[in-house]
Amino acid sequence: MIYLDNAATTRVRPEVIRAMVGAMEEGFGNPSSQHGPGRAARALVDRARRQVSGLLGVAEDRVLFTSCGTEAINWVIEGVRRASPNGHIVTSTIEHHAVLHAVERAVEQGMTATYVSPDATGRIHPEAVREAIGKDTCLVSIMMANNEIGTLEPIEEIARVCRDSGVLLHVDAVQAAGHVPIRAQEWGVDMMSISGHKFGAPKGTGALYVREGVVLPPLIVGGGQEKNQRSGTENVPGIVGMGMAAELAMQELPDEMARIEGLRRRLIAGMSQVKGVTFNGNEVYHLPGVVSMTFRGIESESLLLLLDMQGFAVSSGSACSAGAGEPSHVLASIGLDSISARGTLRISIGRENTMEDIEALLAVLPGMAERLFALSPLVRGNQ
Amino acid sequence: MIYLDNAATTRVRPEVIRAMVGAMEEGFGNPSSQHGPGRAARALVDRARRQVSGLLGVAEDRVLFTSCGTEAINWVIEGVRRASPNGHIVTSTIEHHAVLHAVERAVEQGMTATYVSPDATGRIHPEAVREAIGKDTCLVSIMMANNEIGTLEPIEEIARVCRDSGVLLHVDAVQAAGHVPIRAQEWGVDMMSISGHKFGAPKGTGALYVREGVVLPPLIVGGGQEKNQRSGTENVPGIVGMGMAAELAMQELPDEMARIEGLRRRLIAGMSQVKGVTFNGNEVYHLPGVVSMTFRGIESESLLLLLDMQGFAVSSGSACSAGAGEPSHVLASIGLDSISARGTLRISIGRENTMEDIEALLAVLPGMAERLFALSPLVRGNQ
Repeated sequence: MIYLDNAATTRVRPEVIRAMVGAMEEGFGNPSSQHGPGRAARALVDRARRQVSGLLGVAEDRVLFTSCGTEAINWVIEGVRRASPNGHIVTSTIEHHAVLHAVERAVEQGMTATYVSPDATGRIHPEAVREAIGKDTCLVSIMMANNEIGTLEPIEEIARVCRDSGVLLHVDAVQAAGHVPIRAQEWGVDMMSISGHKFGAPKGTGALYVREGVVLPPLIVGGGQEKNQRSGTENVPGIVGMGMAAELAMQELPDEMARIEGLRRRLIAGMSQVKGVTFNGNEVYHLPGVVSMTFRGIESESLLLLLDMQGFAVSSGSACSAGAGEPSHVLASIGLDSISARGTLRISIGRENTMEDIEALLAVLPGMAERLFALSPLVRGNQ
Repeated sequence: MIYLDNAATTRVRPEVIRAMVGAMEEGFGNPSSQHGPGRAARALVDRARRQVSGLLGVAEDRVLFTSCGTEAINWVIEGVRRASPNGHIVTSTIEHHAVLHAVERAVEQGMTATYVSPDATGRIHPEAVREAIGKDTCLVSIMMANNEIGTLEPIEEIARVCRDSGVLLHVDAVQAAGHVPIRAQEWGVDMMSISGHKFGAPKGTGALYVREGVVLPPLIVGGGQEKNQRSGTENVPGIVGMGMAAELAMQELPDEMARIEGLRRRLIAGMSQVKGVTFNGNEVYHLPGVVSMTFRGIESESLLLLLDMQGFAVSSGSACSAGAGEPSHVLASIGLDSISARGTLRISIGRENTMEDIEALLAVLPGMAERLFALSPLVRGNQ
């Protein structure tokens, strides 16, 4: 199996698994306990907090652990709603469903929202954010990297706009963390959500950075863990795993970005030879490993299944809404009609992939696409 | 180190660690993905759902995975509040802080609450619950087993009272699951929260049973995982671990209950010889492994630290509020004054403990207690 769906999730790194097993065998205490095993578990959590802070470029006491990126995002939106029940949120039309559905719920409860559209490459322009901000705006929530097309957003510039307007900025960095450099504190980001399983940590791990001075009411209350901000016994093995994955990702980032970008270029060059294939996203501002390509007239589900039978795991869109059968809101936002959207495949290259994987894919995908193009009643000339 | 704080957390079982490593190495796909690795991960989650359903005695499609017991509890209280913003909640004075603080927040937002008191052994009487239910009552939330004193509550009878009154019953079974038999569906419980790390699964795992027909709005929205009830990529390794721990606990339950009850009896018999020691809880209705004992006049923190130095891990109360320095609301509710509460130690026996562990503790704890009693200005006759 050649796994090329690293934007959906990544294989847990062996170093991470070893660290987690240690945390379960020896560091199994409750970090709130005062005895030896409790103190040992507490030390593991503290260390992981430093590691994750390093990845985000923030002060280490400002990172709070959650159970996933989605929880962190819900926490931000619901927390802001509690603080400003009738406030206004600015977000974009290409956010992940975690943001979009949390904002919808906040609107059902009395908030208002404006959705900024990106350009045809998926870029959200800081001036569009500025124009959307009004006197009641209490939050701007913009993703750092889009999960379907890989476009990177101008977070530093958007942060400047928010600072000028006195509005909090939350950045969903779930797809970006571990894959491109992040300097959240230097950029002036107020809150940032990340998910561990997108960069070699296990599922069930996430974190929220909250800038010093920002008061965010908790989503989950109880025993007072995480400085009384997120109750529930800490997921020590998961937290340890995320810390280890963060440290490794940070060390390897410059080399891995260049290497994966090279694989991406080879994939695009190879698939460009196939007539009828187009590419989505931004050629300058993009994640190193995400390639979104459209086979207009083909059902990408068919390609996905054929590739699966040949031992390749890829995606027809975001994993989260796969199977839902709904057309992608991201692809619609960048101007694809439903035929193009249904013919779009996402290939996401990760740390374990090699040039051989790309060449293996290029040995089968063009032929598959050509056969399906030839059968499609939607392709001009076939009827 | 002899670990006798199993009510705070348990060591992850070796079988559970092996299952989790498998889920991270081979079952690492995203359960929402349609390709092979995605389907494999989905199958792992489905299997774990059957295993956890078995432990609770409920239909397997009614268990939803969460990140911890506290999240499950917050979900119930906040979900009921969303559905009935001005409704009335009946709970008890000895619930875990997860319930108490979530109810406090609901009250801040417009709900009302009545707190039923237990008797001196920690038992909540079904008739007291019946009396507390009024015309606006929409939820009763009672724990199955108390985390500090081990008392088991008459859940089946309380469920009958709730059914008679047409009120939903939520049971916090965090301390009970895996330690005593549970037949949630047969008893007529509407919702039940559990936590994996209390029975040999890793931290960061929990589940909520929701009876068929009960509609509970989600706490966390987004990609629509867990039948659109709890969004966020499923914590596959954690879920697999909880499933394995549930199956093992269920298989071993009758034997382990008897064995651990035997260790508890020996501990109580031994400590009964020490003048000035009293025991808290209910002699008939209790968890097999929890012993709460009061050394009136001694600071239990001192005992805890002395025991820690001798290689014994015990607790001065619930781990969650340990270090907070506040007197236990549970001990106050059963009538202990602050001197007695400050002198209370919780010893919680688990699957890994043996009679040798209990004998080792009995070889040191009585002498320690006698020395501290002799020094205490609070003990009659010392001044």
